[in-house]
Amino acid sequence: MRNTDERIERQLAFALELDKEKNVFRQTSLSGHGRKENDAEHAWHMAVMAYLLREYANTPVDVTRVMLMCLLHDVVEIDAGDTYAYDAQGLSTQKAREDAAKARIFSLLPDDQRDDLLAVFDEFEANETAEAKFAHAMDNFQPLMLNHSNGGSDWKEHDVDAGVVYGRHRMTREGSQRLYELTDAILQENIKKGNLPEG
Amino acid sequence: MRNTDERIERQLAFALELDKEKNVFRQTSLSGHGRKENDAEHAWHMAVMAYLLREYANTPVDVTRVMLMCLLHDVVEIDAGDTYAYDAQGLSTQKAREDAAKARIFSLLPDDQRDDLLAVFDEFEANETAEAKFAHAMDNFQPLMLNHSNGGSDWKEHDVDAGVVYGRHRMTREGSQRLYELTDAILQENIKKGNLPEG
Repeated sequence: MRNTDERIERQLAFALELDKEKNVFRQTSLSGHGRKENDAEHAWHMAVMAYLLREYANTPVDVTRVMLMCLLHDVVEIDAGDTYAYDAQGLSTQKAREDAAKARIFSLLPDDQRDDLLAVFDEFEANETAEAKFAHAMDNFQPLMLNHSNGGSDWKEHDVDAGVVYGRHRMTREGSQRLYELTDAILQENIKKGNLPEG
Repeated sequence: MRNTDERIERQLAFALELDKEKNVFRQTSLSGHGRKENDAEHAWHMAVMAYLLREYANTPVDVTRVMLMCLLHDVVEIDAGDTYAYDAQGLSTQKAREDAAKARIFSLLPDDQRDDLLAVFDEFEANETAEAKFAHAMDNFQPLMLNHSNGGSDWKEHDVDAGVVYGRHRMTREGSQRLYELTDAILQENIKKGNLPEG
């Protein structure tokens, strides 16, 4: 099975398909009040931060596994689009859209790699292992860092309040108590400054 | 030293600084003749491809190390900008510009992490280990894949010929004979189609 032309063609079909993630834009603005960030940039930033901040995981993590989760966790958005964390209507159809995307995109790969990367993707989604929980902490903390650097402009744009924002960021605590304490301090600072209305 | 406020502040200063890589644009166009790609997107794409294609490394590699090199190899371009692979004048000042950037940017980190990430960065640059050579193969092959998908439009835009292009891509052979064979086939196909003039 190894090293056939068909195998490498399938690997490269998947690699080329990934290019489309660079056109899936999120609701987070780049620092310095730049344009919105896309999924590929977000994934890259999360993966580096996972390596950099791994000492703050609640329990020691396999950082390679965390980095892979960070790099791949949004691949289904190529078809399903980005669903904003505070968009209740979009969230109601998110799972069905993402399941169909997952089946199509990972099936481009040779079977063994499809199964390998699906296991990484599903482990992130299930959010049960220390690695998945720490990757989710990155998924929350990375956009918080950018939004905080911009004076909370993303919250203002979407008219969300502290209750809703805390609801999402509490998940960070499962992956990293330390980063959750920092999250809490950042949210409190933004509430005090009037950047985030109390819920 | 661990878990102090100063430590995490330095880590986050570096993490936020990295955001600027999303504004460093390269000469490669996204597939589908899209806009130019930026360094963060390129690094993400390379890291995933390194994992996906690791079986083609000439000798077995520590894929975590390769992925870290892919993720970090362009960080100096935050200050120094992207130097196009075929820009002789830019290339002559590239090293001095990138050395100054390297000193500034990695010094944002706590000392232990500065040393750790500098070692990753310098190992890539020295291009002596199997990991560095395979990461360089990704650095060459990822934009080739995109450019090939666009009918070689990046070569036409910069008026380069096959001699120059082969000069760069021969390095891929040091990391992966298999990917070099594929590179050669892609270049021959583009020469035949008239997308790349013979040098």
